[in-house]
Amino acid sequence: MNYKILSTETVFKGRVFDIQVDQIEYDSGTPGVREIAIHHGGAVVLPVNPEGKIVMVRQFRYPIDQWLLELPAGKLNKGEDPYLCAVRELKEETGYTAEKVVKLGAIVTTPGFCSERLHIYAAFGLSAGDHEREEGEHGMSMIELSMQEIEQKISAGEIIDSKTLSGILMYKIQYEPA
Amino acid sequence: MNYKILSTETVFKGRVFDIQVDQIEYDSGTPGVREIAIHHGGAVVLPVNPEGKIVMVRQFRYPIDQWLLELPAGKLNKGEDPYLCAVRELKEETGYTAEKVVKLGAIVTTPGFCSERLHIYAAFGLSAGDHEREEGEHGMSMIELSMQEIEQKISAGEIIDSKTLSGILMYKIQYEPA
Repeated sequence: MNYKILSTETVFKGRVFDIQVDQIEYDSGTPGVREIAIHHGGAVVLPVNPEGKIVMVRQFRYPIDQWLLELPAGKLNKGEDPYLCAVRELKEETGYTAEKVVKLGAIVTTPGFCSERLHIYAAFGLSAGDHEREEGEHGMSMIELSMQEIEQKISAGEIIDSKTLSGILMYKIQYEPA
Repeated sequence: MNYKILSTETVFKGRVFDIQVDQIEYDSGTPGVREIAIHHGGAVVLPVNPEGKIVMVRQFRYPIDQWLLELPAGKLNKGEDPYLCAVRELKEETGYTAEKVVKLGAIVTTPGFCSERLHIYAAFGLSAGDHEREEGEHGMSMIELSMQEIEQKISAGEIIDSKTLSGILMYKIQYEPA
């Protein structure tokens, strides 16, 4: 790219992300600043039940003060394989274990200001069990929806989470081509 | 929800986002912390050219040190109508003006830790003109792709931006139902 980094400073160290401020200089001599959130990423799982319905969770999202319908997902533990994270979050949030977990792809959620990368998997051959939700996930509930129901909810503005929409598109392309 | 907010503090004020740390207490008495990025949102535009191809931009993304294929998009100016932001970003990044700009929906990009909401539009009836890119957008280029080409690039991991994937899904549901 057409710049060099003059300095880099971590101005906030958090539990979920750190904030880094870089001073840069374009080749033209113009100075610039880049403020970025450093996030270590996570995994998302699109569980498909025996009737072909997709399992989603309804959960409260503090930053937007709103209940959302989302695919199960969670942050990577330090050094964790995203595949194992997907399997873990599936069990924790829905109680399901899966016979087969296959990668759909990876996404970046907000590449303009954050490094977060999410790995997305589809899970098949589900067996029900007990969920293991954390206290911050209080009130989370599960819902299983057909693709038609999901598309209606997207059009109605009832599914708005970008990782969920991204996962649905990847699944449609790979498993339900037009 | 099952908590109350004990305190809220802005620990970083940036150009693109602020960081706020809230101390909370669950009804059970357990304390909690919420670290959130406050972002004022933006607009995304999915421009459809006369042959039905979708106009995308290739741009460098500093936080992930990678060139991405994305729908044109940008941050809302203070108090700006998202529709006007979409029209402005379309002109700035691609040079196109549109006869018709219609809302596809809105998304939240990272509701676990950030308040960002993006408004997504489709643009039809495009007329070419000069783009007005900023210095930080140096090297940006434009590419027009059919839906089939886009789906191939998604499967190949060449389109990974979540707002772009979300916009493509909304467009498929509303304009190309199976």
